[in-house]
Amino acid sequence: MNNKQLIPHPQSILWQEDHLVLLDQRLLPTETVYLHCTTPEEVWDAIATLAVRGAPAIGIMAVYGLYLGIRSLSEQDEEMFWAQLDRIAHYLNSARPTAVNLSWALKRVVNRAKQLRGQPIAAIKEAIFKEATEIHEEDVTVCRQIGENLLPLLYDGMGILTHCNAGGLATGAYGTALAPLYLARERGWNLKVFADETRPVLQGARLTAYELQQAGVDVTLICDNMAGAVMKEGQIQAVIVGTDRVAANGDVANKIGTYSVAVLARAHGIPFYVAAPVSSIDLDTATGDDIPIEQRSPVEVTNGFGKPTAPEGVKVYNPAFDVTPAEYVTAIITEHGVCKAPYEKSLKEAVKVERSL
Amino acid sequence: MNNKQLIPHPQSILWQEDHLVLLDQRLLPTETVYLHCTTPEEVWDAIATLAVRGAPAIGIMAVYGLYLGIRSLSEQDEEMFWAQLDRIAHYLNSARPTAVNLSWALKRVVNRAKQLRGQPIAAIKEAIFKEATEIHEEDVTVCRQIGENLLPLLYDGMGILTHCNAGGLATGAYGTALAPLYLARERGWNLKVFADETRPVLQGARLTAYELQQAGVDVTLICDNMAGAVMKEGQIQAVIVGTDRVAANGDVANKIGTYSVAVLARAHGIPFYVAAPVSSIDLDTATGDDIPIEQRSPVEVTNGFGKPTAPEGVKVYNPAFDVTPAEYVTAIITEHGVCKAPYEKSLKEAVKVERSL
Repeated sequence: MNNKQLIPHPQSILWQEDHLVLLDQRLLPTETVYLHCTTPEEVWDAIATLAVRGAPAIGIMAVYGLYLGIRSLSEQDEEMFWAQLDRIAHYLNSARPTAVNLSWALKRVVNRAKQLRGQPIAAIKEAIFKEATEIHEEDVTVCRQIGENLLPLLYDGMGILTHCNAGGLATGAYGTALAPLYLARERGWNLKVFADETRPVLQGARLTAYELQQAGVDVTLICDNMAGAVMKEGQIQAVIVGTDRVAANGDVANKIGTYSVAVLARAHGIPFYVAAPVSSIDLDTATGDDIPIEQRSPVEVTNGFGKPTAPEGVKVYNPAFDVTPAEYVTAIITEHGVCKAPYEKSLKEAVKVERSL
Repeated sequence: MNNKQLIPHPQSILWQEDHLVLLDQRLLPTETVYLHCTTPEEVWDAIATLAVRGAPAIGIMAVYGLYLGIRSLSEQDEEMFWAQLDRIAHYLNSARPTAVNLSWALKRVVNRAKQLRGQPIAAIKEAIFKEATEIHEEDVTVCRQIGENLLPLLYDGMGILTHCNAGGLATGAYGTALAPLYLARERGWNLKVFADETRPVLQGARLTAYELQQAGVDVTLICDNMAGAVMKEGQIQAVIVGTDRVAANGDVANKIGTYSVAVLARAHGIPFYVAAPVSSIDLDTATGDDIPIEQRSPVEVTNGFGKPTAPEGVKVYNPAFDVTPAEYVTAIITEHGVCKAPYEKSLKEAVKVERSL
């Protein structure tokens, strides 16, 4: 990995000799426990139960999971190999429905394998592993580049609000939304970052506050419902969030609560930036209405902290994501530059640059 | 109490023979524990630690606490009695700074006592107790009347969002914001209520969801950051909240997060109603800028659920309240009717009606 020496954070995903090692984010920040995955089923579980989350991270995990599933297949039975490759990719893709990176990464690996059809299965297995590690390594470079592209929109001394965790723990390293904060820190800037705790799973409190604190970034934790108040007090000059999928028209799916933050930012005249690797732009999804929104268990809301915090049997609505309409988005920052409205055009351009590489 | 037979809920505050009994709301909904207070210090603690909270409720508690403090004073030493009365009232008033009902109720009792100056101390003690019970009983009537006045603004079948707990547990009974929901239930309406869980102390999850569920009201619990999403989905036709203090210009202090909800309601064209007993209108406070905002311990945010949910030592911003500017408030509903903008005029009218009674 080119940027290894610069990576400032604990990493969520590591390929260790012959298996996948994951930092179990459900236990952070109080316990540092690593999961060792040797099967696609273990990877599927880790994705579905949020052991590791974050759109880029789950794409990386999934392709390693795919490799874990095919590496022991017979190298004689070609037909079976290709059927299994498709089956396992399909299976891993079902672990979570909203983030497009998951299917993007799996498709990329499957397509790479299919390009080599006819070669010995052993070589194809090797190519699959190589493609997985490349996706992993590229993600680090992509994140750093998103940070570079976002930085000119920011300035020393400003206050920044972020929601959920689009940080190093959600990606190969650096994160998307948090990448510019790390680069600003490298340059000696003093940003004042406010992290929404992000109920119900508290990714902001447990992960964003944790990784920014570790990196020496000035971070203040707030409850989600305080975002409006700190904006009104003039403490926020920009909002930066990540995304799980950007539709062709610029509508942005991201962690539940992002839409509320976007509306509040608009009401206070604060720019609302979305950090998005090109892999999260889905030109096949016309608008946000077409993005499937994962509904998660009521238990996350009622028993999220090891003890019940709501009456037994109460009805709960627990969507994992919401969609922020493009009109609320000041800019979408990719590794290939800054996309602005009209997004139909600028997002298509960014994808075109990516495909031309 | 006139309305006793109609009261549908668990009550927070009960005078039992010779002492004050409080339902410890910190342990709800999983444990039902009553605190028995015999001194003003115990009452002060119960207010400051949120054993019982809610602007009207803490006013009621405080005046019983005042009685507990003066009932054993010597009936011979008049000078000492009056000095102590003032001292204990001042002390109890310091338990929480934002709600005006606390000082309103204490002032009312002290003023009543002072009207009787010259009478035997025993008679004054009795009058203080009587005034405390009257404040308690009146609150039930006031709440029910707020409900009656709010009901014509609602209609059967609508969706309603509420924040924090301005319910029976926060008042003598019925609550302020929740009163119309109970009256609607009495009339056989089917309202669909969404309760913000209300971090950090989760009054919405623990108390509002609990008391509405107990009363058979259709309630769905959401995290605070979902309010925007459910509004966007068209599930909410009105927001109703309580208040800790209304300034003369109609600015409304209420639980942190209320301001965000108000901005979101405005962005979605949803009316934003504030249920406010006249005792929470403070004409001596010109605007919301003049309302002191209580800052509470970071521990509520970082360790609110019995285990740490944020990294040790992280900075936290934890204001207990925020101020919603009058321009976001569709109407303020008191026991004497509905106040609309311009609030300078309508609030003064409501207070005038109260003083003329």
